[in-house]
Parts: sequence; C-alpha cells; structure tokens
Amino acid sequence: MTAPGDRAYLDWNASAPLRAEARDALLAALDRFGNPSSPHREGREARALLESSREDVAALMGCEPGEVVFTSGGTEANNLALASLAAGARLRCFAAARLEHPSVLRPLEALVDSGWEARWMPLGEDGCAEPFVSAEVGFGVLQAANHETGALQPVGQFRGEAEEAGLPWHCDATQAWGRVPLRAGDLGCATASLSGHKLGAAKGVGALFMRRGGRVEPLLLGGVQERGRRAGTENLPGIASLAAACACAARDRAADAAWTQGLRDRVVSAVQGLVPLAWWNGPEDPARRLPNTASLSFPGIDGETLVQALDLEGVAVSAGTACASGAGEPSPVLAALGISEWRVRGAIRVSLGPTSRPEDVDRFLNALARVLPRLKGE
Amino acid sequence: MTAPGDRAYLDWNASAPLRAEARDALLAALDRFGNPSSPHREGREARALLESSREDVAALMGCEPGEVVFTSGGTEANNLALASLAAGARLRCFAAARLEHPSVLRPLEALVDSGWEARWMPLGEDGCAEPFVSAEVGFGVLQAANHETGALQPVGQFRGEAEEAGLPWHCDATQAWGRVPLRAGDLGCATASLSGHKLGAAKGVGALFMRRGGRVEPLLLGGVQERGRRAGTENLPGIASLAAACACAARDRAADAAWTQGLRDRVVSAVQGLVPLAWWNGPEDPARRLPNTASLSFPGIDGETLVQALDLEGVAVSAGTACASGAGEPSPVLAALGISEWRVRGAIRVSLGPTSRPEDVDRFLNALARVLPRLKGE
Repeated sequence: MTAPGDRAYLDWNASAPLRAEARDALLAALDRFGNPSSPHREGREARALLESSREDVAALMGCEPGEVVFTSGGTEANNLALASLAAGARLRCFAAARLEHPSVLRPLEALVDSGWEARWMPLGEDGCAEPFVSAEVGFGVLQAANHETGALQPVGQFRGEAEEAGLPWHCDATQAWGRVPLRAGDLGCATASLSGHKLGAAKGVGALFMRRGGRVEPLLLGGVQERGRRAGTENLPGIASLAAACACAARDRAADAAWTQGLRDRVVSAVQGLVPLAWWNGPEDPARRLPNTASLSFPGIDGETLVQALDLEGVAVSAGTACASGAGEPSPVLAALGISEWRVRGAIRVSLGPTSRPEDVDRFLNALARVLPRLKGE
Repeated sequence: MTAPGDRAYLDWNASAPLRAEARDALLAALDRFGNPSSPHREGREARALLESSREDVAALMGCEPGEVVFTSGGTEANNLALASLAAGARLRCFAAARLEHPSVLRPLEALVDSGWEARWMPLGEDGCAEPFVSAEVGFGVLQAANHETGALQPVGQFRGEAEEAGLPWHCDATQAWGRVPLRAGDLGCATASLSGHKLGAAKGVGALFMRRGGRVEPLLLGGVQERGRRAGTENLPGIASLAAACACAARDRAADAAWTQGLRDRVVSAVQGLVPLAWWNGPEDPARRLPNTASLSFPGIDGETLVQALDLEGVAVSAGTACASGAGEPSPVLAALGISEWRVRGAIRVSLGPTSRPEDVDRFLNALARVLPRLKGE
C-alpha cells in the first residue's frame, strides 16, 4: 500500500495519481449502470453523462465535442490516428521522428514492414525534431512534447509546412495537455491524442481529436458507438473521471505549470550544485520545455541502477519510458539524439505534477546525495 | 439519477449493475496509481494487483493466468480473437453463424470484404446454429450463448467436429460466464471472450482467453504490456473490479442461476397466462437456455414501442442488442432465424441477474398488463 507521506513520487509522466475531482466523478458514474446504447431511462442517463463528459474533454482539447472519440487510452488513440491517416494517404510514405512514443513508433514500423517508406526527420541534440515535409509524403507525425526530455517540438513550424504541402498529420499530445497551452482546433493537425491517466484521470481511458470530415479507419468493429469510429460499450466511469480531470486541467493549467516549474527548477539547480558535471537533457531555452519534466544525466552512473537505489530511499523516478521498460535498455529517445553514450546510459527522468510537494523535492535531493557516492564507488 | 426502488431493471444482458465486491475492489485499486510497467515500488504494487487479478479471472475462465489477456471489453476481445485466428489461418475461409454479436459479425464481414469466403452455418428456428465444419475452412466461430434469445449453442458438438478437422475456433462466451458451467481450457477453442460489465464489473474492461502457443495478431501496438499481446497502460481499476466480479461469479454461479431461473420462469408463465398467443423464442428444452434470459414475442405488437411504454411505467427491458440499437431495426438475431415476421417485430428481451428481486418481476408483469391493451388498440 502506498503511503504518500513516506514516499516522494516524481514519475508523473509515467502515471499521475488520481485527482480528487476525477475520483468523485468516477464514483458518481458507477451508479449510472445502464448501457449508453440502451433506449430506456437507465441507458439515457448513462448517455447523458457520456455526452456531457465529451463536452468537458472537448473544452480542454479546444475542439468540438463531435470531434472527440473516447478510447481505452493514449495507445489506442495513437493507433487509431495512424490507422486512419494511413488509410487516407495518397502516398505510402510518412514523415516522422524517432523520438515518438512506442505507441506511435510501433504502428509506423508496422507500416514500413508492409512496404511503406519512412522519412525520418533529423533530430537535434536538444531533443527536438527538425520538421521535414514534402509533397512526396502521405502523412506526417509530430508529438507536442517529448515524454522523456520534455522538449516541446516545433509543431507551429510543422503546421506551416504541412499546410503548404497539403499534408495531414497526427500530433501525440499526451504529455502536453494541462501543461502548456494547446488547442487541437488551432494546431492544424488531423488528429491529436490524449491519455487520461497522465492528466489525473483513471487508467484505461483516453481520447482522440479527429478533425471533422477526416478519414476514419476504426480499430474496433461492432456497435455504432462513437458514431462508428470506435465500437464497444463505453468506459463510462473512466470517461467521467477524464471529464473531471480535463476540467481541472483547463482551469488550473497556468497555476499548475508555475508550481511544477518552480519545483522542477529547484531540482535542476540543486542537482547541478551537487554534481557539476550532471547534464540537463533537452532544449536550453526554458520556454521550449515542459514545465514539469527534467531529464538529468550523471557521468559514470547507470540510470537504471540509480532509479533502483532511489526507490529504496523512498523516491520514485524513472530511467525511461514505462511502456518500453523491462527491456533493460537505456532510453530509446536519448539514444536517437546522437548524444554522448554516458548521457544516454546515465539518465533519469524526474517529472512532477500539481500535487507534488517541496518535501518531495527535498527527499529526492537528500536521497541523491546519499546514493550517488555509493554508486560511483561501485 | 437512478432510484432502484422506483424502477425494475430487467436488461442485464445489455449491462449489469456493478457488484458491491467489484466496487470495493475498484476503489482500492484507485490508490495503486503507479504504472504497472514502472520498476519502482508504486509500479510494482500496481503490477502485483494486475497479476493477482489475472489469477482470479483465470479461475473463472478455467485456464492458466498466462492465457488471459486483459482488454477494454468484450468487443475488443472478440476483435482480437478474430484478427489472430484470421492471421493464422491456412485458408481464407471461415465458418460462423449469423446469430453472433455485432462485435463478431462486423469483423467477419470485413474479412469477406477483403476477399474471404464465408460458410454461414444453418440456423434452427430454436435459435441454435447447426455446426458445420470442413477441411476447407480456415477457422470457426461459435458463441456459447446467444445474447438475445439466451439459446445455448452446441459448442460440445462443434468442439468435436473442429477437433477432427484440426480447426481452430473462437467462442464468444460473454453472456455465459457466471450463468452456466464453462471452462475455456475444456471448450477446445483457441480463444474465448469475456465482457466485464455483463458480469457486474465496471464498464471498459474485458478479457480474452488465448490458448498457449496460438498465433496472436495484436490490435494495439506500442508497449510490451500483456506479453506483447495488447499494448497500452492497463486499466487497473477496471481489472480489479473484473477480478472481484469473476470471484463472485465463480463462487455463486449455481445459486445465481437457480435464483434468476426461478424469476425468469415466473415471467414466462405469467406472460403466457396474460397473452396466450405470446411466444417464447429459443430452444424448448430449458437445459438449452441461459437461466436468466427470456425473449418474448407478442402478436400485433411492435417490440420497440413496447419497450418505450414499459420504460414509462418504470421497467427497463430491451428490444434487441444495445450495441445495434439506434438503427430502429428489429432484432437481427431473430430476423436471421427465419421465424414469422410478427415474432421478430414483436419481441422484447427480459434478462435478470443475481440481485434481481421478485418485486421487479411483479412490476414488469403489472406494467405489461396495463400497457398491452393500449398498444393493441393503436
């Protein structure tokens, strides 16, 4: 059982604790047990909650409610977006960067396996892609913010080039909602994904913005739920929790960003005082980073080992993407940047959220000071 | 807001109220906020709950925990099963019946659209398929129990013929778990699906039995969750609720079946007393029906209109599959049976569950007696 007082949880980019408002909304939804597709009162009550939830999610995403498709999470949202873009593409070629999340990269690799051509965009050492768009490409992909480094990608520039080339594109924005200003309707993309549990909603729910009129290639076939874009009885408790989390994120974004940025900056400056050779991965310009994330590399240290040692000291951070873990490999994002080997091997990610406390940062810094000399001695 | 005291909910085959044990398990899981793929303590606690839940689900399904793949529901489970069977088939031909759920029929129709041959099994007027298997078929499909009529399908006979022909097959068992004795490991099928919310778990979760060693064609690509069979952060609260619901269903199956069968039989005999020409769809032999379901046809009545009239009287029943609703068409299952037009148009489905009460049946029967003469007069 997790005793928050005993631990410092600094791994919000892997999963965020449930927001109190999301919990309340989920509990209330558990009593709406009707099937939203049923015509009787229990069904209509469930459907009313479904559609009011869609409005709250659309308000955060900056789009029309009809452009929101509920999914089982960010992975399904990314998969649905890519299947739809691939199905509608004029040319079997895509432009993307190797710093995308596995739920974007794996479907792209599957396209390559089936004969598609990949145009991989160049990556800077700062963790940002250099947009590359041409008329020979069928669709494009660019995330809003990187899950490991927190680097904000040049989506504005990408938008301009894509518009000029008439290219539809997908934006994996799962790490950006509630942290930076973002409106799907203004991004210019065809599709944009959201993951509930990164925002403080329950696990098992997400959403995809699908611009009105775009091609849809459903992954799940059966009923006519979600206007035929996604079959299956809707995860109403999860969706209600997502709506509440979105409402909080829309309301509190600026304050949450300032709060987490303050804590994050304290982490970075203290680490640089403690280990002058430590490196902060990502863009130097603070305006080009997520406010809540720090990817830090320690010379002569193995990131996975450091994560384990900190865990024993009561601190949860990560060495890479949770979705790619278990492989024992260093961060695939950092490895793709062409930076020094030690910075890839020696990296940990610290990520914070609205209820992170100064004590969490203190505990992390104290644990780090205890642990690093021991690991260096090994 | 649903006030159970004011209403009789008799639409359990569309969605069941959350079991108290499932609610408790879900609430406890909300505090396990770590990502099950994270290596730190919060992640390991989440993973421990995930894996103990898998054991409870495997116990109900009658298989090994490693053969259980968690999904977002019955629809995804059926879709995943069919994609996997199709990918592994030696021949582009399947054998199936037109009484399957839309989440089975739509993927099969998509195969036909892409060039597969369909061998549709003959259907009896009693709502049962006549198994048809040959060496010219790549895979087979047969549900355990029909969602509309409650007809138990001849899966034993199908098993024998499939074994002889060396044919892998999928069993949509979503309406059968917890109602009739069923063990995936003994069924002989390659895959068998389960829908959480039909069992009293939360909406948004399901499971697929995938026999060890069978071909897997994942629908969702990304992380290595579910041993690579289904990417995406796991819906831990939903999965915990599913485990609790499965434990209840395994423990109480015989008592629940006896209880619902008693109420159901009272519905049927009272309806036959009230409307001597009313017809009970499905097999005559009670041993070949689900204990909780009655599909009843009323001469000269439109089923959808009757459902609406009963709803106004405080009674929730259904005219067909919730997943196919909104189309305003009569039950596709009954339409496929070749029975009289009036029995298709005039059908409603009454389905009960473990917490159904005798008062619910009374309310239904009283409402029916009030409503039928009015509808006949129209």
